[in-house]
Amino acid sequence: RDGRITMAHGAGGKASRALVEGLVVPLLGDRAPATLSDAAELTVDGTRLAFTTDSFVVRPLSFPGGTIGELAVNGTVNDLAVSGARPLAVSLAMILEEGLPAEALEEQVRAIGAAASAAGVPVATGDTKVVERGKCDGMYLTTTGVGVLRADASLAPERVRPGDKVLVSGTIGDHGVAIMLARGGLDLEAEVRSDTRSLWPVVHALLDACGPEAHCLRDATRGGVATVLNEIAAAAEVGVLVAEDRLPVRPEVTGACEILGIDPLYVANEGKLVAFVAPEVADAALEAMRGVEAGADAAVIGEVRDEPPGRVLGRTAFGGHRIIDVLVGDPLPRIC
Amino acid sequence: RDGRITMAHGAGGKASRALVEGLVVPLLGDRAPATLSDAAELTVDGTRLAFTTDSFVVRPLSFPGGTIGELAVNGTVNDLAVSGARPLAVSLAMILEEGLPAEALEEQVRAIGAAASAAGVPVATGDTKVVERGKCDGMYLTTTGVGVLRADASLAPERVRPGDKVLVSGTIGDHGVAIMLARGGLDLEAEVRSDTRSLWPVVHALLDACGPEAHCLRDATRGGVATVLNEIAAAAEVGVLVAEDRLPVRPEVTGACEILGIDPLYVANEGKLVAFVAPEVADAALEAMRGVEAGADAAVIGEVRDEPPGRVLGRTAFGGHRIIDVLVGDPLPRIC
Ligand SMILES: Nc1ncnc2c1ncn2[C@@H]1O[C@H](COP(=O)(O)OP(=O)(O)OP(=O)(O)O)[C@@H](O)[C@H]1O
Ligand SMILES: Nc1ncnc2c1ncn2[C@@H]1O[C@H](COP(=O)(O)OP(=O)(O)OP(=O)(O)O)[C@@H](O)[C@H]1O
Ligand SMILES: [Mg+2]
Ligand SMILES: [Mg+2]
Ligand SMILES: [Mg+2]
Ligand SMILES: [Mg+2]
Ligand SMILES: [Mg+2]
Ligand SMILES: [Mg+2]
Repeated sequence: RDGRITMAHGAGGKASRALVEGLVVPLLGDRAPATLSDAAELTVDGTRLAFTTDSFVVRPLSFPGGTIGELAVNGTVNDLAVSGARPLAVSLAMILEEGLPAEALEEQVRAIGAAASAAGVPVATGDTKVVERGKCDGMYLTTTGVGVLRADASLAPERVRPGDKVLVSGTIGDHGVAIMLARGGLDLEAEVRSDTRSLWPVVHALLDACGPEAHCLRDATRGGVATVLNEIAAAAEVGVLVAEDRLPVRPEVTGACEILGIDPLYVANEGKLVAFVAPEVADAALEAMRGVEAGADAAVIGEVRDEPPGRVLGRTAFGGHRIIDVLVGDPLPRIC
Repeated sequence: RDGRITMAHGAGGKASRALVEGLVVPLLGDRAPATLSDAAELTVDGTRLAFTTDSFVVRPLSFPGGTIGELAVNGTVNDLAVSGARPLAVSLAMILEEGLPAEALEEQVRAIGAAASAAGVPVATGDTKVVERGKCDGMYLTTTGVGVLRADASLAPERVRPGDKVLVSGTIGDHGVAIMLARGGLDLEAEVRSDTRSLWPVVHALLDACGPEAHCLRDATRGGVATVLNEIAAAAEVGVLVAEDRLPVRPEVTGACEILGIDPLYVANEGKLVAFVAPEVADAALEAMRGVEAGADAAVIGEVRDEPPGRVLGRTAFGGHRIIDVLVGDPLPRIC
């Protein structure tokens, strides 16, 4: 472990994992999270709840296709959704920088209200703190969500097995590229919008179609689809083979990524999930996802193999193979 | 409303209220919190849950009697407790500043684990983000809690009525003064420690003793006991009379407050609650609180009157009266 915190520790890749697994979990002792999944499961009087939190520190605060406020609602709703839970309520904690214009706050609170409406979830409680000028970057938001697990949801990395099909719910890399472009300084005219949105409609349709034959879902946020695939491959001790020519990527995103020298597989999404389903239900899963707006561009992108355990392989359009490894940090800091 | 966010908006007094009631709630529209209480109530399959969140931005990160990590656990546990809910789980979202020494993080995570153990609550889920040097002040923490409401708890400001007795669970002003002294620069040698701790044992004992005759509880954090009394007086449209000579204040705190020119009634606490109970159960409530360690110095400090509605009056040792109003900001910024 390094002696100091670096940007890589917040990027969602190898360094983030190492910090959580190597420092946070051991030092929390018997109070640490039981599993390192998108949401924790809590049982109350026989009711199974999901519980999850995320902080948002994205800059700029508003960008094509979204705002920090929308990310904050949808990000937490999506960690509940991919756990198989209908979102019940979110909380909203704001850390504001002294001197922030009231209009900037108003814009974000309005966006939060709209995103909460769209996701069908109330903002049940909140908190507001202010720190001195220069001790924050406009505003940081933290949302926490509680959801009710569907009885037919049985989602866990350990349920993934050889033969399972791997799907994504739509085009990848949109969010991260939108942020990069919004930051400017790039000689690029492409119009790419963040994909921030609630994934609950996709999950709901998927579970209606597949029930417990849906084995594992995960939203592909920091670290992108490549990081999710690696986490599941490691946890399930399976190999994952990705047909790279089947990855849905917008041409503008492909173009921007080429210029930036990054791979869309590693770029953050804020409205896309990766699904591992039994092969018998793969067609039904694809159809179900495509039947809802948020899953219109869903695709089967690969399958689970016995070999090599814990590894993700990409098969290129020309039939060659490459290892799709997990990155230490992230090419794009403060993306969410 | 001001055109820009000021430190007062984060101080828990009049400006904080105005921001939440005048900006946040209207702009969240029908997604806004139903009540502005310590915790929201969620009902799932007939089970009544409490849900609450707080961010912590205190500086310094460690101080006599506590740390930001302990505040983060106990603060959220206490908002559940004063709602009448047994804490079930908390989440932990960390925003870290690039360059933070690993030992500083280790110290806080260890403190969080210890506080969670003491409060009997798991850290079920979390998140970790990193921002560039100078965009944070070491670390900011946000915790969110879920609790299970006791069936015999019926706590709300509207239940407070003339005749009710007002109690505090112990000495007031310790936390805020400990922070001030820890920041240094004061020619003061006093040893004052933060009172950060879980209040669930106090609430549990109180409810065992009083059940629904306990009308309203609130933890006296930012803005101190004076702010809590004003909020309840306003919400219940009653007057509150405080016998100032009955307020339990440590001599060191009284001394420090005199030098600082502040009133302990407005100083933040992190392990004290204010209770409004029916007069018939006041003695039982006092005895119950004193029977647990966290309530050893509990005292009856006043009573509820018809008049003047929405106002808090202090009766001094010499029989005079003064109005105890709510402050716009706070004499002590970033206290939690
Ligand atoms: N500070 C922390 N304390 C406790 N658990 C943590 C902490 N940070 C992360 N975790 C846990 O580590 C796991 C991975 O967290 P991570 O934030 O990467 O997941 P995510 O929220 O799904 O992704 P993203 O934050 O990119 O949306 C989760 O199970 C989370 O609960
Ligand atoms: N950003 C926000 N969004 C929604 N509700 C908010 C927000 N900030 C505060 N509130 C609500 O305003 C009320 C008062 O919040 P406040 O933070 O003062 O209470 P508290 O947590 O009990 O006190 P403290 O933060 O000092 O511990 C609560 O009901 C809270 O849910
Ligand atoms: Mg996730
Ligand atoms: Mg997330
Ligand atoms: Mg609060
Ligand atoms: Mg409170
Ligand atoms: Mg609080
Ligand atoms: Mg997260």
